[in-house]
Amino acid sequence: MSEIRKVDYPSRQKRLAEKIRADGLDAVALNPGPSLKYLTGLNFHLMERPVVAIFTPHEPPLIILPELEAAKIADLTYPVTPLTYGEDPLTWGAVFRKAAQSAGLPSGRLVGVEPRSLRVLELRFLEEAAPQAEYVSAEETVTALRIIKDQFELEVMRKAVAIAQQALLATLPIVKVGVTEIDIAGELTIQLLRSGSDPEMAFGPIVSGGPNSANPHASPSHRPLQPGDLLVIDWGAVYNGYVSDITRTFAIGPVEADLRHIAEIVADANAAGRTTAGPEVPAEDVDASTRQVIERAGYGQFFTHRTGHGIGMEGHEAPYIRSGNGIALQPGMTFTIEPGIYLPGRNGVRIEDNVVITATGIECLTDLPRELIELG
Amino acid sequence: MSEIRKVDYPSRQKRLAEKIRADGLDAVALNPGPSLKYLTGLNFHLMERPVVAIFTPHEPPLIILPELEAAKIADLTYPVTPLTYGEDPLTWGAVFRKAAQSAGLPSGRLVGVEPRSLRVLELRFLEEAAPQAEYVSAEETVTALRIIKDQFELEVMRKAVAIAQQALLATLPIVKVGVTEIDIAGELTIQLLRSGSDPEMAFGPIVSGGPNSANPHASPSHRPLQPGDLLVIDWGAVYNGYVSDITRTFAIGPVEADLRHIAEIVADANAAGRTTAGPEVPAEDVDASTRQVIERAGYGQFFTHRTGHGIGMEGHEAPYIRSGNGIALQPGMTFTIEPGIYLPGRNGVRIEDNVVITATGIECLTDLPRELIELG
Repeated sequence: MSEIRKVDYPSRQKRLAEKIRADGLDAVALNPGPSLKYLTGLNFHLMERPVVAIFTPHEPPLIILPELEAAKIADLTYPVTPLTYGEDPLTWGAVFRKAAQSAGLPSGRLVGVEPRSLRVLELRFLEEAAPQAEYVSAEETVTALRIIKDQFELEVMRKAVAIAQQALLATLPIVKVGVTEIDIAGELTIQLLRSGSDPEMAFGPIVSGGPNSANPHASPSHRPLQPGDLLVIDWGAVYNGYVSDITRTFAIGPVEADLRHIAEIVADANAAGRTTAGPEVPAEDVDASTRQVIERAGYGQFFTHRTGHGIGMEGHEAPYIRSGNGIALQPGMTFTIEPGIYLPGRNGVRIEDNVVITATGIECLTDLPRELIELG
Repeated sequence: MSEIRKVDYPSRQKRLAEKIRADGLDAVALNPGPSLKYLTGLNFHLMERPVVAIFTPHEPPLIILPELEAAKIADLTYPVTPLTYGEDPLTWGAVFRKAAQSAGLPSGRLVGVEPRSLRVLELRFLEEAAPQAEYVSAEETVTALRIIKDQFELEVMRKAVAIAQQALLATLPIVKVGVTEIDIAGELTIQLLRSGSDPEMAFGPIVSGGPNSANPHASPSHRPLQPGDLLVIDWGAVYNGYVSDITRTFAIGPVEADLRHIAEIVADANAAGRTTAGPEVPAEDVDASTRQVIERAGYGQFFTHRTGHGIGMEGHEAPYIRSGNGIALQPGMTFTIEPGIYLPGRNGVRIEDNVVITATGIECLTDLPRELIELG
């Protein structure tokens, strides 16, 4: 990864400070996860020892962390105020109180937190340290920073797609009648690593054949592939912390006509989504465009999920491509387009691409064929 | 994994119901994670769509989940009451309110939650649905069920250790001067999968050489190994949802005498911990036994973490092997013994085994050599 240039974390922290002020917050408290990594480059496992960074508009970030993680902040190229604690949980509250005081939280009113990331563990320590504060969602505050990807982030995401596509092509030769879903998932994971994926992947591949393919979020099972199955593979790589998230559907030998038919409908729906997406287009319009194709073909009730979701440092993030989400898409927003048809007890199809909004339309990052290819 | 017999989930749920009553709780609310999997076999990704299961002493579990995940509960062999919601987040609150009502939460007082797992996302939906309830830690309630492993769980954990050890042996041939930490971590991950690890691993391997080895929680870097480095490898497999977590330290060619010396001290400390551990022994005594060896050798200040932690469905769980934890170890408890010495700016050593308490002492699941072996 020699091409990785230094990310300018202080500039990201400055943008957060401005946004904290603009949103009427006094501070933002983050636990380990993509947002903390985006703002600081710091990568912690989410464990039983709480790590919390408190960002205020005026001071360097305060970081509460275990002593044994202190080496991680020793070489930072920007200022932080570390507060470390030892192995006895009874001593942790005092460190949180000290941090809350340094950050001016006892007198502050509104502390933003990320509801999808912060746990009750960290929340209770914060509440105990600064009981007067109100802990509100900072999801929009933080999302506003991360939702538009810069050129460097897009380069990295193109690479995450290339790694994933290469890994799938290296895996397809083993796909045949009799091979289990879990064996294919294992081989695909190996090929993702061989192709250059970061070792810590966002999600394990979904590999679902036959009736299992009718479950959009199936876990790979020990069921062997059978002739006439549809096979849904939903996988992605992680590169430099950014994900790809792709789905293609294959046929295990010839399949019945109605299954071939739904595969064609989903491919058309996917194409409609890619045609509709562009700058200033509301996210819900992209959803409506794929849904309309499937509804008109008479399968509306079998397209049971939204059309897509944002991708970046998380596998699912804003913008969500769903009915009711009026957000106007902007250049630099990256998301999936993944319509599907799922016939319960029978088979399912999903075709998922990764796109970025450009000044004039979209760039589709994924380019594997979308038609139903027979394998095995 | 044909040897996996059906787990008796209703019996686990019954034990939870008894424990809920005994601990004076009215219900326990769990989001996706090891405890939910332990109690139901259900495996959900932790995403922006909240999934919460509510367990009460009297009724089948209530499960709040997205419609598109409904197929996951279709084939359960025990009763549950599902409450599903669609793609619009504005409709989710009503489903939580309905669930809270069905579970009798509005009139209930104490709802147990897992602080290390439940997020502010799920907590706020619960609080809004049943504002009269108090949300308290159910950590001990749930831990009491999971901390003693049965024979089936131990079989699975032995296999998780065997997979990890086999993967390390398959990786060592590439370890030599000039190879980077991240390349070794990638190869080790591949070998873990080839050896049979579940695709979703608990944590990426720690591979840290030279000065990086002095950071107990280092992330693999692009630093190439150099002659005279110590190399710490901390890795594990997952098998049928259960983890192993092992560390060995190697020498890259001959190393300086003081580094060889600390490797010997840590091996002695590890042996002391394994000798001390046994039924009815307080966890803190195991910690004291390893620490004493290192302190007497004059390196006490450089053993900066506890001696170990429980392992099972989580990489870190109870019992924690640390000063101040008086819990009496019991047959079936599984944990790590992993003393270390870390010389800042120089090198570090850690030797980590996985053990289970037996009726008379311990069974050590890990058996790779612990002495300092020269590689490369």
